Amino acid sequence: MSKVHNFSAGPSILNQEVLKKASEAVVNFNNLNLSILEISHRSKDFVAVMDNAVALVKEILNVPEGYSVLFLQGGASTGFLNTVLNYGNKNGSAAYLNTGAWSKKAFKEADISHGEAIIVASSEDKNFNYIPKGYTVPDGVDYFHITTNNTIFGTQIKDIPVQENTLLIADMSSDIFSRKINVSDYALIYAGAQKNLGPAGTTLYIVKDDLLGQTNRTIPTMLDLRTHIGKGSMFNTPPVYPIYVSMLTLEWLKANGGIEWIERVNQEKAALLYSEIDANPLFEGTAEKEDRSDMNVTFVLTNDDVKEDFDKMWNEAGISGINGHRDVGGYRASIYNAMPIESIQVLVDTMKQLANKYDLVNE
Amino acid sequence: MSKVHNFSAGPSILNQEVLKKASEAVVNFNNLNLSILEISHRSKDFVAVMDNAVALVKEILNVPEGYSVLFLQGGASTGFLNTVLNYGNKNGSAAYLNTGAWSKKAFKEADISHGEAIIVASSEDKNFNYIPKGYTVPDGVDYFHITTNNTIFGTQIKDIPVQENTLLIADMSSDIFSRKINVSDYALIYAGAQKNLGPAGTTLYIVKDDLLGQTNRTIPTMLDLRTHIGKGSMFNTPPVYPIYVSMLTLEWLKANGGIEWIERVNQEKAALLYSEIDANPLFEGTAEKEDRSDMNVTFVLTNDDVKEDFDKMWNEAGISGINGHRDVGGYRASIYNAMPIESIQVLVDTMKQLANKYDLVNE
Repeated sequence: MSKVHNFSAGPSILNQEVLKKASEAVVNFNNLNLSILEISHRSKDFVAVMDNAVALVKEILNVPEGYSVLFLQGGASTGFLNTVLNYGNKNGSAAYLNTGAWSKKAFKEADISHGEAIIVASSEDKNFNYIPKGYTVPDGVDYFHITTNNTIFGTQIKDIPVQENTLLIADMSSDIFSRKINVSDYALIYAGAQKNLGPAGTTLYIVKDDLLGQTNRTIPTMLDLRTHIGKGSMFNTPPVYPIYVSMLTLEWLKANGGIEWIERVNQEKAALLYSEIDANPLFEGTAEKEDRSDMNVTFVLTNDDVKEDFDKMWNEAGISGINGHRDVGGYRASIYNAMPIESIQVLVDTMKQLANKYDLVNE
Repeated sequence: MSKVHNFSAGPSILNQEVLKKASEAVVNFNNLNLSILEISHRSKDFVAVMDNAVALVKEILNVPEGYSVLFLQGGASTGFLNTVLNYGNKNGSAAYLNTGAWSKKAFKEADISHGEAIIVASSEDKNFNYIPKGYTVPDGVDYFHITTNNTIFGTQIKDIPVQENTLLIADMSSDIFSRKINVSDYALIYAGAQKNLGPAGTTLYIVKDDLLGQTNRTIPTMLDLRTHIGKGSMFNTPPVYPIYVSMLTLEWLKANGGIEWIERVNQEKAALLYSEIDANPLFEGTAEKEDRSDMNVTFVLTNDDVKEDFDKMWNEAGISGINGHRDVGGYRASIYNAMPIESIQVLVDTMKQLANKYDLVNE
């Protein structure tokens, strides 16, 4: 069968070796002659998976002492609520940076789930094609929430807005493990697995332990992060397989050189594609250059008459998943960690081929 | 490799053909040359999986009009909270039948998450070895919550306590799809997948639509069942793989004859094992006979001196996962839908072999 170049925004491409191991474990895990899907989560074989996954997160992201790593359920959408309940006081106020559709949903949860929610800055005026800068976070807020990468709009926060005396909380669903981060800047990091970490079905939390339990709320059991810290993500049955495949992905990342390696590779991959977008007269990026995401590359055609040709060409080249989100239109190439530069080269070649067909030479 | 007889309480045994297909889809799903783990949940191939899984639940359980079927995250433990928030009024009261550790957790959530929670009857006085009967549910409660099968204690509610004018809510995590049920008896049924439905990571909800939105609460977005009904379980990224494997399991169940078939098989399987427990002088069941579970068979040795021998024998026979839960001790054989009667026969033969060794003839 011919190779598929999978630019899906998420759930998204995983490494081929990871998939091979993940497939084998479904019929015979650890030579137990049992599937990973049918063993107890309390068995020593799965406890070892969980322990290894947690240890790999800590090692790869250089997580300092005093932070817990959790693999939970519910997606970032549940993370929005966990943020409010674990860090926001009843009748307190919380600050949000509004950089896209997911930021808005995070804000909305704070707005409906009690207290005052403040948008300190927004790029909605330009359909979220940039990251606001130069704003002020009010003193005395319970926390400041950011979305580090905006999957739909193709923007990414390059300079993390750390403010003294303000708890910083980040939804990193679409760029965690793609670049170096300084975990100690954050009270909480959360991220759905289904971009750089693994398949859909688990959500990573990196939590500074001593900041929990400081609010005036009663928190339901499953939404209280302390519940899960106390039980090592095993308060109830965890999503065994998504955690297993995440562990395999982290092993792959570590074996290849960890964050330093992948950050360099991701920068090379993004530069290759953005260079073509900027050089090719038929394409135009939608995000402000300084805020461009290294994970989701959004672009449009400068001439809609060539759309049919382009769509036919990339389809024939085996490219899939590059139609843009309806909020932006055009195209979106999601180039997460597992995406090989060879696939990006195929896309770039297709873009060049389109220009050539119309006798337009890239500058 | 030798066959493993997997009596794990959950995550638990899945059908071998299901596992084979599930393994193949991890490397190549639907001949897309893509893994099921790396495609968009909005792709037509996955939307078809979700639609099929929902349709199979409706067909197999004969779900009437007016009910929605959802595949969510969070396990039954999140179901405890969803119950309170979607059906319980602020300062209202709710009734619980206390038949085991999971019932207690469900009750606890109602107790801490506002309103008054009432235990109408409990079998805790005898370590939950029976199902209370003859109790009265007070008029005017918001709902009445039951746990239909008690995984740890090996009891099962045989006569569902339907009461006129009282909303009935059931946690069916460990016996859904094992026997006929009358869905119209219930306002809500919920069940973690990891027993009879699929792997850990998704939770089934069967919801009577017109009973939602009747309370005086503001419900956070992700905990409001209406959120998920409105989006067909795709408000946010669903747990793709657990849902896919659940769909395969439901296809297997339907192809073999559905609920009528599996109920008959489950009764035969349970009868085979309970007969041996009752006939063999070295064994004793822990649950009251009339309340015995067809899913989880709990028993103890009548003479602890033979424990070492028995443990050696079943280990050598390839049996795994029959150590009892610490709350009951002894042994627990979980004999869910996918457990073949041949594996139960191996266990029964081992029990006979033990009696023979001590020259005790079964009566």
